[in-house]
Amino acid sequence: MRTEDFDYNHAGQSFGAYVAHDETLTGKRPGVLVIHDLWGLGEQPKERARRLAELGYVGLAIDLFGDRFQPKALTEALPIVGEMRANSRSFRDRLRAGLDQLANHPEVDSSRLGAIGFCLGGISVLELARDGADLSGVVCFHGNLDAVEPAQKGGVKAKVLVCTGGGDGIVPDAQVSAFQEEMRNADVDWQVNVYGGAEHSFTNIYADRAGIPGVSYHEKADRRSWDAMRGFFAEAFAG
Amino acid sequence: MRTEDFDYNHAGQSFGAYVAHDETLTGKRPGVLVIHDLWGLGEQPKERARRLAELGYVGLAIDLFGDRFQPKALTEALPIVGEMRANSRSFRDRLRAGLDQLANHPEVDSSRLGAIGFCLGGISVLELARDGADLSGVVCFHGNLDAVEPAQKGGVKAKVLVCTGGGDGIVPDAQVSAFQEEMRNADVDWQVNVYGGAEHSFTNIYADRAGIPGVSYHEKADRRSWDAMRGFFAEAFAG
Repeated sequence: MRTEDFDYNHAGQSFGAYVAHDETLTGKRPGVLVIHDLWGLGEQPKERARRLAELGYVGLAIDLFGDRFQPKALTEALPIVGEMRANSRSFRDRLRAGLDQLANHPEVDSSRLGAIGFCLGGISVLELARDGADLSGVVCFHGNLDAVEPAQKGGVKAKVLVCTGGGDGIVPDAQVSAFQEEMRNADVDWQVNVYGGAEHSFTNIYADRAGIPGVSYHEKADRRSWDAMRGFFAEAFAG
Repeated sequence: MRTEDFDYNHAGQSFGAYVAHDETLTGKRPGVLVIHDLWGLGEQPKERARRLAELGYVGLAIDLFGDRFQPKALTEALPIVGEMRANSRSFRDRLRAGLDQLANHPEVDSSRLGAIGFCLGGISVLELARDGADLSGVVCFHGNLDAVEPAQKGGVKAKVLVCTGGGDGIVPDAQVSAFQEEMRNADVDWQVNVYGGAEHSFTNIYADRAGIPGVSYHEKADRRSWDAMRGFFAEAFAG
């Protein structure tokens, strides 16, 4: 396993990135973008990038906030996220700049790209899909599903898998239903997996630290959703 | 692969069964009950029993109607199904009689039993779970999810996986939500996978023959849901 940190520029700002790949493999291979939650490019997304490398992909975790900012409290994070989401075009451009880093990686087969994200990162990968980015598939783990600019009919190239907690108060059943309706109307190849008992942030082993009600790690849902992602990408990158 | 047809008696009636297992394996192994849709114990459930045997399980497809009855039209099937569903206790006893056939099979480890079902069979495996049957897991493929007698808190032993079509007009989003609420209230280990684009009967290659609007085969959803079932049983039988 080889890992590397680097930085790139977009719109006058510097963004961090962390890439992992198996250096014993030869030839170009699928690449998967990893997008962090509210807490920035910390250990959790980096660990996922390494796990993607173990699956034979190039895993590239990017920094959405710029300058590798890692909020220490919700009060630090939420205003930034609110502003990002409110400006879809600049949000999507920022995401595409990260995706370009992946597509241009020397080990990556740029015709087979994927993206996964957690909470804010889940929102982000759906934004890439809605924007028609050239992705084989995206997996949203416990991300909000409401759209600022809904997907357009025929405009989504990526297959979409949403993994959401059946006990996630931030993403209630009604939001899941509305998302499914959005996907139907846009003719997307979509799947939604609901994991009973799991609250928001169910994949994040550090989730309980924040002490936020309704936010907790859920080992079974974490394992099951990762397994679902594996099968999803195996299909998406084969087709 | 060895397959065998046999009959058993329950409540004064004769029921057919079809069992498949890999005769090159030795020792007891998990057994999975297979329950047919509205059309009775025909080729579709038998083929699934054989596929379960290929996975290393004993697959046992049972006849829910008695005397191996295979309806030829909805008008033949629906009254029988309505009567069965309206009498939960006798319905559940009939299902348990089928499950006993599996538990008593010489190759089956009776501590590791599962059940899968399609449409009516999906309803049936949920009835077994709601009844507290001693099952490691059940998988409902495009079955109705509404409960005549809802699951009781702590009363469900089986892990539950529901695979439902995102375009299934017979199992709309609201029914899925109500089911999820039932599962939450009963403290079940549950998962729901929704497959976009799939209508009712999406696993049945013969579904389109009936010419019923909203009922059709969906190859992707069939494959994806079977893969989900494989992972589900791998976990359920290991734990």
